[in-house]
Amino acid sequence: MAEFDLIARIRARTASTRADVVLGIGDDAALLQPSAHEHLVVAMDTLNAGVHFPEETAPADIGWKALAVNLSDIAAMGARPAWCTLSLSLPQADAAWVDGFLDGFCALADGHDVALVGGDTTRGPLSVCVAVHGFVEPGRAMRRDGARVDDLVWVTGTLGDAAGALAQSRARQKAIDPVLRARLDRPQPRIAVGRALAGIAHACIDVSDGLLADLGHVCAASGVGAEVSLDTLPWTEALRAHFDPDARRMLQATGGDDYELCFTAPASTRDAVARIAQDTGVQIVRIGRIVTGSGVQAFDADGDAWRAPRKGHEHFAD
Amino acid sequence: MAEFDLIARIRARTASTRADVVLGIGDDAALLQPSAHEHLVVAMDTLNAGVHFPEETAPADIGWKALAVNLSDIAAMGARPAWCTLSLSLPQADAAWVDGFLDGFCALADGHDVALVGGDTTRGPLSVCVAVHGFVEPGRAMRRDGARVDDLVWVTGTLGDAAGALAQSRARQKAIDPVLRARLDRPQPRIAVGRALAGIAHACIDVSDGLLADLGHVCAASGVGAEVSLDTLPWTEALRAHFDPDARRMLQATGGDDYELCFTAPASTRDAVARIAQDTGVQIVRIGRIVTGSGVQAFDADGDAWRAPRKGHEHFAD
Repeated sequence: MAEFDLIARIRARTASTRADVVLGIGDDAALLQPSAHEHLVVAMDTLNAGVHFPEETAPADIGWKALAVNLSDIAAMGARPAWCTLSLSLPQADAAWVDGFLDGFCALADGHDVALVGGDTTRGPLSVCVAVHGFVEPGRAMRRDGARVDDLVWVTGTLGDAAGALAQSRARQKAIDPVLRARLDRPQPRIAVGRALAGIAHACIDVSDGLLADLGHVCAASGVGAEVSLDTLPWTEALRAHFDPDARRMLQATGGDDYELCFTAPASTRDAVARIAQDTGVQIVRIGRIVTGSGVQAFDADGDAWRAPRKGHEHFAD
Repeated sequence: MAEFDLIARIRARTASTRADVVLGIGDDAALLQPSAHEHLVVAMDTLNAGVHFPEETAPADIGWKALAVNLSDIAAMGARPAWCTLSLSLPQADAAWVDGFLDGFCALADGHDVALVGGDTTRGPLSVCVAVHGFVEPGRAMRRDGARVDDLVWVTGTLGDAAGALAQSRARQKAIDPVLRARLDRPQPRIAVGRALAGIAHACIDVSDGLLADLGHVCAASGVGAEVSLDTLPWTEALRAHFDPDARRMLQATGGDDYELCFTAPASTRDAVARIAQDTGVQIVRIGRIVTGSGVQAFDADGDAWRAPRKGHEHFAD
């Protein structure tokens, strides 16, 4: 199968009805009609086999995740997604693999009305680069540099499941719990929560490197510090069942890949945050407070300072 | 060196003064102010080591080319570039390599006032994915499906040099001619010509897969055929010096990676095309004509039909 056949296959599966796509897949570049009164939001992230997902991951899960991690960045800005481009590097042109990949990719794209408008397919080690384009009203984007002293710190969903699945995968002692595995393979970008928080939250980031590391990025950009109460971090029953409290706490505080949103907002918005949780059906839990100074300080149930064994995930650190 | 240090290094080298960049590198996504009355043009292409460039290619040349191939797509649409994102996969975080890469990347970006606004750096086999965003006036984009019967077919610059360098590299018998090598490593995206042609040319494509293959894409999209006179294809003295006429003709007609523009325009625009060549200092040569039917037919100096040994470059074909 040649490159042009692969592209035709992808094009046939991803026809979009969005009126703002003037010209999609098939030319030198896509032609798009941007929103006139909003800012364009662009995120781009690559997933490499053996680094961001185990080699044996199902193609459909790779397709889902490659889009999900980018939609999560769009969510963290408070934006609505519109279009994406896909650059797919494959060792060989494998139609069955691409069909599987598209199953996952399209399921997520269709669910958020995201049109695939371009990109390329090339030969190379398995790697997926996706760029997502969205829009947000001027002044409403949730930047990392907006946190203010006395803001409350909140997190959506639960933390540590994806890292728990990875820990089980590395231990190879037993099967990976399916609930944890689903969190690792099929992260749910918090688009609806992000949209609702735009204009309410001061700052936001998605938890990809680990909660403490990511909240640290917000603090560094905002010139503030944060205090986090570890016992308030939300967990799933699956995580509790497989890890003792110390291990669980470590996974929640420092494990990456959960793609939940961590945001800061003034205490006066507490009711608004509760309403957003109710409207979206996504749990939102208060986990700490923004303070003067710098860095993130975590405390355990006794109020003692907690030191993480590691500070989060860095792609070049291991 | 960790990922965050690499990003800081890239950020420091690529600070932009473009007023339409609301928020660049350093957040979950970039915030951009799109042009209100134009279409957004988006191209994305990946270069993989060992596939799109020899492993030993200088980092600066890789940086240049990764941006150039995308700017060439923008040029082929008749658009002006504005912003780009970069996803860089590296086997290890090598500061010297990244500095070299940025030398080439920034030289080209600065020359076209293109701001690097985001992306990521990850661990993996050497691979560079770039997305470029630009703008074009509605109705003026040069699409592949716009060619009409009796249009003249034109090409910018010269053809075959990049393929000549690759042929010399594969033969390994002698050093690669520096003029040919420069065409392979440092393609010049024809942005100025593309901008001038928007509204004049009916259809356009950049020559990346080989002239006959790429013109074939235009014909297929437009539902027309084309006749090309091989002896009119422009060459450099360097190409003539190293290859006999048959070999040269093959490189010109089917060699990829030249990144010249091939466009079709009505005969009535002949003077306008000549003026564009004069204004931009880029040679533009008439090489054929659009006809009814389908496919591209090439003729030699005697008017005999010519058959290429291969039809152009496909990434999965070899």
